[in-house]
Amino acid sequence: MKDTKVYLLDGGALVLDGYHILWNRGPAGEVRFPVYSILIEHQEGRFLIDTGFGYDHVMKVLPFEKPVQSQDQTIPGALALLGLEPKDIDVVFNSHFHFDHCGGNKFFPHAKKICHKSEVPQACNPEPFEILGYSDLSFSAEAAEARGATAQLLPGTTRDNSTFEGIEGDVDLAKGVRLIATPGHSIGHYSLLVNFKKRQPILFTIDAAYTQKSLETLCQASFHIDPVAGVRSMRRVKKLAEENGAELLYSHDMENFKTYKKGTQFYS
Amino acid sequence: MKDTKVYLLDGGALVLDGYHILWNRGPAGEVRFPVYSILIEHQEGRFLIDTGFGYDHVMKVLPFEKPVQSQDQTIPGALALLGLEPKDIDVVFNSHFHFDHCGGNKFFPHAKKICHKSEVPQACNPEPFEILGYSDLSFSAEAAEARGATAQLLPGTTRDNSTFEGIEGDVDLAKGVRLIATPGHSIGHYSLLVNFKKRQPILFTIDAAYTQKSLETLCQASFHIDPVAGVRSMRRVKKLAEENGAELLYSHDMENFKTYKKGTQFYS
Repeated sequence: MKDTKVYLLDGGALVLDGYHILWNRGPAGEVRFPVYSILIEHQEGRFLIDTGFGYDHVMKVLPFEKPVQSQDQTIPGALALLGLEPKDIDVVFNSHFHFDHCGGNKFFPHAKKICHKSEVPQACNPEPFEILGYSDLSFSAEAAEARGATAQLLPGTTRDNSTFEGIEGDVDLAKGVRLIATPGHSIGHYSLLVNFKKRQPILFTIDAAYTQKSLETLCQASFHIDPVAGVRSMRRVKKLAEENGAELLYSHDMENFKTYKKGTQFYS
Repeated sequence: MKDTKVYLLDGGALVLDGYHILWNRGPAGEVRFPVYSILIEHQEGRFLIDTGFGYDHVMKVLPFEKPVQSQDQTIPGALALLGLEPKDIDVVFNSHFHFDHCGGNKFFPHAKKICHKSEVPQACNPEPFEILGYSDLSFSAEAAEARGATAQLLPGTTRDNSTFEGIEGDVDLAKGVRLIATPGHSIGHYSLLVNFKKRQPILFTIDAAYTQKSLETLCQASFHIDPVAGVRSMRRVKKLAEENGAELLYSHDMENFKTYKKGTQFYS
């Protein structure tokens, strides 16, 4: 049996104020941070976790986040570096539907799609403070229709080929690939624990903790729907990492990201 | 029967970043904002709603909020402008126990004290992100003991003379003085609706909406425990103001505060 391989697909970078990265704590000032997706080559298939941001969407709707994204940092470009095309992906799982995690979903009409069962309804009917977070609706005909944003859909996107299997609680996406329910940042947010034959497990916090400092200080991002749940999720992530002897990889931590394996390098 | 009179006790001013005033929206940069308490001269007694911040506490624990407070802006000083002393107050009601709303409670050991039943427990055991909010514990021997901060208590403060009657839901503090449950900013936050014989009612948003712009844009402060409830509370405040033809007074809105009656002037 082949061992699992995990590739990080570098998706470019965005900018936020320090008060957004570390809620109410900062310090203030522009912080540039990375965005990446996770490709898992697994005995049971090719799984893609999240799909980054769409450059054109950010420039149109949130240009103040100053997107930087080369052709190699688009989803098709990052896959091409590995000799892959979107059609080679079997399953797309979204940790949640904020725009920087679902911008490339539109390239996967053929793939099986999975998310928390509350995330599509929330994207259809967000809280006022979530409108910009859930602003790229190209991932779902249902959400785009609910929000009057069907112009965002790629030609060929239909309800049939943009429907998600909804899950809740902790779920095994594949053997040794465990989705960890970590609500707070969004209503149905998931983190990810990947086990390997030889090396220590990896726990991807995803947006339960943007950065190492977030987790160390229990200071979540300023974007959240339930900060009490957010603290509980961070405590859970810490505990799971300890119990599993897992390496922690953060979602939006530039300093740590520089040390992560990227491109054709992989974790295995 | 005497008509109700409402005095605003100017309590000085603090500074926050614009991202704290309007959550995730800003714009960034220092914003100086007023803090005030509300004195209600009522047929049934003298009611004080909130008690401002303690200058020494802020300088010690949150000096980055750059407190400004003259002697006339302390609670005893502001009462003295009206020819009153702390002992003349019959009832102290706290909208919540963030430090800028309870700093003067220590001057009222003799008064009856009322708050939401969840606020003292929350001050005793706050979420990690509420620790600075609930940092002035001089209002309660119980809370100060729970947090290892008994050094904050004025000599003579005991459990007996710093105990609160806990309430929940909407409650009439006195005839025509209605406490409106508006959780979100804090777990047991209250707004205040005051009726008069002659003039239109006044709805004090307190921290359900720091500013007029907060309410108009449904953008709460960045300090909150339940932002979904916070939005619901703002919608409720708006609706109540409309239904009652009430004038809205905001808690931390410098531009509007300049137009409010202060000192020996009053609403009646």
